[in-house]
Amino acid sequence: SSGGASRVLARLLRERIEAWLDRSLGPLARLLNRFRARIRTRHADAVARRHFYTRIIDGPVAALLRRGQHEQAETALRRSLAAQPAAAKGSVALVGAGPGDPGLLTLRALRALGEADVILHDRLVGSDVLGMARRDALYIDVGKRTGAAAMGQSRIHNLMLDHASAGRRVVRLKGGDPFVFGRGGEELEFLRAHGIDYEVVPGITAALACAAHAGIPLTHREHAQSVRFVTAHCRDSLDTLDWRSLAAERQTLAIYMGVGQLEALRDRLIAHGRAASTPFALIENGSMPDQRVIVGTLAQLPERASRHAAKAPALLILGEVAVCAEHLHWFGAAPLGAAAEGDMRHAA
Amino acid sequence: SSGGASRVLARLLRERIEAWLDRSLGPLARLLNRFRARIRTRHADAVARRHFYTRIIDGPVAALLRRGQHEQAETALRRSLAAQPAAAKGSVALVGAGPGDPGLLTLRALRALGEADVILHDRLVGSDVLGMARRDALYIDVGKRTGAAAMGQSRIHNLMLDHASAGRRVVRLKGGDPFVFGRGGEELEFLRAHGIDYEVVPGITAALACAAHAGIPLTHREHAQSVRFVTAHCRDSLDTLDWRSLAAERQTLAIYMGVGQLEALRDRLIAHGRAASTPFALIENGSMPDQRVIVGTLAQLPERASRHAAKAPALLILGEVAVCAEHLHWFGAAPLGAAAEGDMRHAA
Repeated sequence: SSGGASRVLARLLRERIEAWLDRSLGPLARLLNRFRARIRTRHADAVARRHFYTRIIDGPVAALLRRGQHEQAETALRRSLAAQPAAAKGSVALVGAGPGDPGLLTLRALRALGEADVILHDRLVGSDVLGMARRDALYIDVGKRTGAAAMGQSRIHNLMLDHASAGRRVVRLKGGDPFVFGRGGEELEFLRAHGIDYEVVPGITAALACAAHAGIPLTHREHAQSVRFVTAHCRDSLDTLDWRSLAAERQTLAIYMGVGQLEALRDRLIAHGRAASTPFALIENGSMPDQRVIVGTLAQLPERASRHAAKAPALLILGEVAVCAEHLHWFGAAPLGAAAEGDMRHAA
Repeated sequence: SSGGASRVLARLLRERIEAWLDRSLGPLARLLNRFRARIRTRHADAVARRHFYTRIIDGPVAALLRRGQHEQAETALRRSLAAQPAAAKGSVALVGAGPGDPGLLTLRALRALGEADVILHDRLVGSDVLGMARRDALYIDVGKRTGAAAMGQSRIHNLMLDHASAGRRVVRLKGGDPFVFGRGGEELEFLRAHGIDYEVVPGITAALACAAHAGIPLTHREHAQSVRFVTAHCRDSLDTLDWRSLAAERQTLAIYMGVGQLEALRDRLIAHGRAASTPFALIENGSMPDQRVIVGTLAQLPERASRHAAKAPALLILGEVAVCAEHLHWFGAAPLGAAAEGDMRHAA
C-alpha cells in the first residue's frame, strides 16, 4: 500500500509523543474533569465547547498550572466559565533555544514555539530551531549576536510590549539559556513594569552543550571543584574582570565569546598565576554537525587557534578537565592539535 | 462519559503535534516511500523492518534531512540498505534528566529514554521523568544522591558494561547535567577503556532551572560578569575550596548541595571579604510545583533557612542578582523573607 513507510514513521513517533502528552496533561485534565458538568452546561454546543477547551489549553488556566499555581488556576477556570468570552490576554515567554540543534530544545520550549503568535529571535538562533515553531507565526529577527545589539534593546522591549498588549503570545527566543550572558533580566524588569505576564524557559547553555559534545566533564573530584562561566566579547570586558580570581587553580573556566581575545586571555591568565601548561579546548560550532575542537596548552592557545582559523561561535574551556577532549571525544571529528602533535599532557 | 475533558484535550494537542510531525516527517516519509520496495526486499521480516525504520528515524538519514541535505540523505539511506545488519551493538547514553520537571527534558533525552533497554538512574531522578521512558525497559536505581554513593561507582561501571556488552541500549540517567558535579567523566573513561560506544546528552542543570523559575538572571552587565557553580555537600569539601576567589565581588555563586553547610558558607565568605549585605536566594525544589524561595542577605542566611526549615534538594544563589527574586518572581509562591520584612536592598 502506498504511504506504508509514512504510517510506520508516524506510529513510531506518535507512541513516543503520547507518552509525554499523557504526563504533561495530568493536572489540566484532572481539573477540567472536575468541572466537566459545569462546562457542559455553560457550553452546550459541541463546537463552542471545543473552542472553550482550546482557550483553556492556550490561556491562563494552563499557564497557571505550569507555574504550579493550582488554586489560582481553578479561580481562573471559574472566571472563564462565568465570563463572556473575553479578549485574549497576551504574554511573553522568555525561552532558551539551546545551542542550535533542535534536539536540544526542551519539551517546554517546543510547546512555547508551537503556541507562539510572534517570535522575537536572536540572529544566532538557527533555522532548524525556528522550523519547530508555528508556521504562521510572525518571525522578527531582532539581530543580536553574542551580546552586541543590532536592534536596540529598547526596540526589543517595545516590540514585546506592543504584541503582548495586543493579546498575542510572544516568544522571546534567545540562544542558549536566557539568563546566562543575555539581557533576560532587563527584559523581565521591563515586562513587569508594564504589567505583562511572562514565564521563563531555561535552555542548554553553550558551556553544557560544548562540554557534552567534546567529552569534557566540567567538574572533576580531583581537578576542578567549580566551573565558572565568563564572557570576553571585547577588550573592555576583559579590563573589568578579576584576573587573580579567574587564574585560581582547581576551577574550570568556560569562556563565552572569547575567540577574538585569545592572546589577551592567555597573557593575563598566565600573568596572574595560571600554569602555562593548563590544557584548553576551543570548541567551534559546538554540538552542530560542523563542530571542531582545537586542543593544546594555555601557552599555545592563540597560535593553535590561528593555525586552525578558529572563528565564532566558539567556546573556550580551560582547566585540567579540557585534556579529556583528547581521549573521551565521541561527536564529530577528533580534536585538532591532540596527541599526534606530541606535546600534550595526559590526565592523571 | 468520564474522562471526556481529557479526551478532548488529548485530541486537541495531538492535532497540533501531528501538524508538527507531518512538517518534520514530510521529507523523510517521501524518501522512504520511494525506497519502499527495496526496504521490503532487504528486510522481509516485519520486526526487522521496524528496527530498520527506527534506525533511520534516529540516525544520519533523518539528521541530514533536518539539515536540508537531501542528496546526502539519500546516499546515507542507500548505504544503510547495503550494509550487513550488524548484531545489535550495545551502547551507553549518558543523559541529563534536568531538574525533575519532565517538560525540561530535551527532545534528545526523550528519544534516548524511549529507546532504552536498560535505565540506570540516580535516586534524585523523579518518577515523572522515569515515566517518559520505555515502559518495558529495565529500571535500576543506582541510588546515588547528591554525590554520595549508595551503590559503589565500580558497581555502576560494571552494570553499564554488562548490559552494553550484551547488546543493550543503556541510558545512564543523571539529575541535571551529566557533566556538572557528577562522575560522568569517570564513567566515560571506563566505557572508553572497555570499547563501549557512548554519547552524552546535556541537561538543564539545577542552577539554570532554579534561576529561570525564581526570576534571577545569573549574570548582569553591571553586577555579575561571571557565574560560578560550586558544590558544598560536606564540610570536607568546604576545606578544599579557594575562599578568597569565591568571595570575590561581581560574580554570582550557584552553590549546589549546600543546605547543610549554610553557617560555614556564610562565615567563610564574609571572613574572606564578601559583603554581609550580599543578597541570597535559596531555592528548594526548584522548578517543581512545591518550589519555595527564601531570600535575605548573606548575614541572615543560616537563620532564614532555619526559620523556614529549608531542606535538600536546594540550590543557593548568592550575589547582587539574587535580589531579583523579589520583584521578578513568576513561578509558584512569592519568596519568603522578601520586602515585607523590611530589611532588603533593592536592585539598582
